[in-house]
Amino acid sequence: MTTSTALLLADLAGVAVFAASGASAAVAKRLDLFGVVFVGFVAALGGGIVRDLVIDEVPPLAFADWRYATTAAVTAASVFWLHPQLARLRTAVLVLDAAGLGLFTVTGTLKALDVQVPPVGACLIGMLTAIGGGLGRDLLTGEIPVVLRREIYAVASLIGSIVVALLAALGQTGPIPLTAAVLLVFGIRLVALRRRWSAPVATLRPPGAGMGGPPPQW
Amino acid sequence: MTTSTALLLADLAGVAVFAASGASAAVAKRLDLFGVVFVGFVAALGGGIVRDLVIDEVPPLAFADWRYATTAAVTAASVFWLHPQLARLRTAVLVLDAAGLGLFTVTGTLKALDVQVPPVGACLIGMLTAIGGGLGRDLLTGEIPVVLRREIYAVASLIGSIVVALLAALGQTGPIPLTAAVLLVFGIRLVALRRRWSAPVATLRPPGAGMGGPPPQW
Amino acid sequence: MTTSTALLLADLAGVAVFAASGASAAVAKRLDLFGVVFVGFVAALGGGIVRDLVIDEVPPLAFADWRYATTAAVTAASVFWLHPQLARLRTAVLVLDAAGLGLFTVTGTLKALDVQVPPVGACLIGMLTAIGGGLGRDLLTGEIPVVLRREIYAVASLIGSIVVALLAALGQTGPIPLTAAVLLVFGIRLVALRRRWSAPVATLRPPGAGMGGPPPQW
Repeated sequence: MTTSTALLLADLAGVAVFAASGASAAVAKRLDLFGVVFVGFVAALGGGIVRDLVIDEVPPLAFADWRYATTAAVTAASVFWLHPQLARLRTAVLVLDAAGLGLFTVTGTLKALDVQVPPVGACLIGMLTAIGGGLGRDLLTGEIPVVLRREIYAVASLIGSIVVALLAALGQTGPIPLTAAVLLVFGIRLVALRRRWSAPVATLRPPGAGMGGPPPQW
Repeated sequence: MTTSTALLLADLAGVAVFAASGASAAVAKRLDLFGVVFVGFVAALGGGIVRDLVIDEVPPLAFADWRYATTAAVTAASVFWLHPQLARLRTAVLVLDAAGLGLFTVTGTLKALDVQVPPVGACLIGMLTAIGGGLGRDLLTGEIPVVLRREIYAVASLIGSIVVALLAALGQTGPIPLTAAVLLVFGIRLVALRRRWSAPVATLRPPGAGMGGPPPQW
Repeated sequence: MTTSTALLLADLAGVAVFAASGASAAVAKRLDLFGVVFVGFVAALGGGIVRDLVIDEVPPLAFADWRYATTAAVTAASVFWLHPQLARLRTAVLVLDAAGLGLFTVTGTLKALDVQVPPVGACLIGMLTAIGGGLGRDLLTGEIPVVLRREIYAVASLIGSIVVALLAALGQTGPIPLTAAVLLVFGIRLVALRRRWSAPVATLRPPGAGMGGPPPQW
């Protein structure tokens, strides 16, 4: 199997899991069939469309290759018709999302490096490929994007993209190191979910509660 | 009249009706003059800007040809100053929107086919050209996009874009079949509005309410 | 100092002030460290990314030149750790925003003119460069964009971009006239904030309250 075939299969697998993730979120929001397919499409292909626009691969793969849109639409419609019971949706969304995060981080970073984007930019593009679909999904369903509220989501992707950039610099872009990078992102995200890791939040002291201010009322 | 002149006129007509649609929505939201013009601009030109970025026609027509921005701005400002009474706004928005939907579906699909995008991608681009402005309008005004809640909106556009792709495959892209495609989308959308057609929504049974579960409380 | 060096420095200064503006808004919203850096990144670089996509400078500078992303990230993280007391944040956000508005309007318009975009389009691109980051910041944090509610924000940018287009037509694009254009936008915005200038809002009479309608109930 050539590298480009492997990239295609990994990409389509990522499309399917992100479409399922987006469709599950849309089903939970009670959107109709078209809304479920559309949110699935955006969640699956939105990040890749942004990536392709930024690296000037036009028309983006999502439009140039019918297998992408078809994979997203069929997966999302399947979730609509076959979705499991409500109580199970939340966990499924989170695990599928973590898998897609890893897959898209690695393929996005590689594609940017392939067209000679410098490493810092390629890492950012890899991260945006991975989190862009989720941003779109959350904006469309009226949520403040989850990525802004759970640090370890995008940071897991950023770590993965840096690992890919380092592997590429070392010439190690075979299937095994890249699969390890996917699993690294997936693992970090799952552990973060499990242990409820979260990022620091800036402390905003109430006016007057700082040094030298009046004592709080009691 | 050449095909490109006909496309230009159809495009500017679509720009005007979408700008009026966006401006009417912004007036109803009590936005100020700039807000009304800006939402009109996004509703009118947002879908086309996305289309041009995706097919690599840069700078997009909205920036390359001053007639587009001027048409959108003048129409939106006219709606601001001359808008009819509140009670009539809702119907006007919906009918203008249906007309713009038909026009932009057809011109968007044709332009994508013209630059050799494959049929499946061209249909998606045609649909995004038509619904993109409305998505932007709804996101800017803090609404969950109407397209996610009323299936027959985007589906009407998708049907129209498939018809255009079929007509193009048969070499029938003269004014008469294309006008018929515009009217088809317009008609489907109006009938859907009139008859309140809507898409299926996934049933989410409450836990325990399925077969074999305990009977509901009464 | 060459023109391109001056443009780079002005651009990086704009990136820093917009990143600080975005990060301050995110701190006030209680987002976590990653959220603060990400909103700072979008506020600082979102407008420029849109500009570069529209004028086909790909990959956009934000990805091609590591100094942009680094400036945005370091500034936003600094605001996170060093942010002043809550009561001072609001004013700081508004003044920094006005400075970034002026800088980005001028650099955005110039770049569009440099690649032969016609004047009307270049003015729109200059304005979008300046207001695009703020739009992204507000959409990400769940606000209706401030630009739609305060007319003198984007209009100040539009005036500045028209001045830049006129200066360019006259061949006056040296540091002094361009700095004057930056200060013009900055000044208009600050005066508008100070005097609470606002745009007209369309009057929506309640049904029946117009001429000839029944008298209001009492």
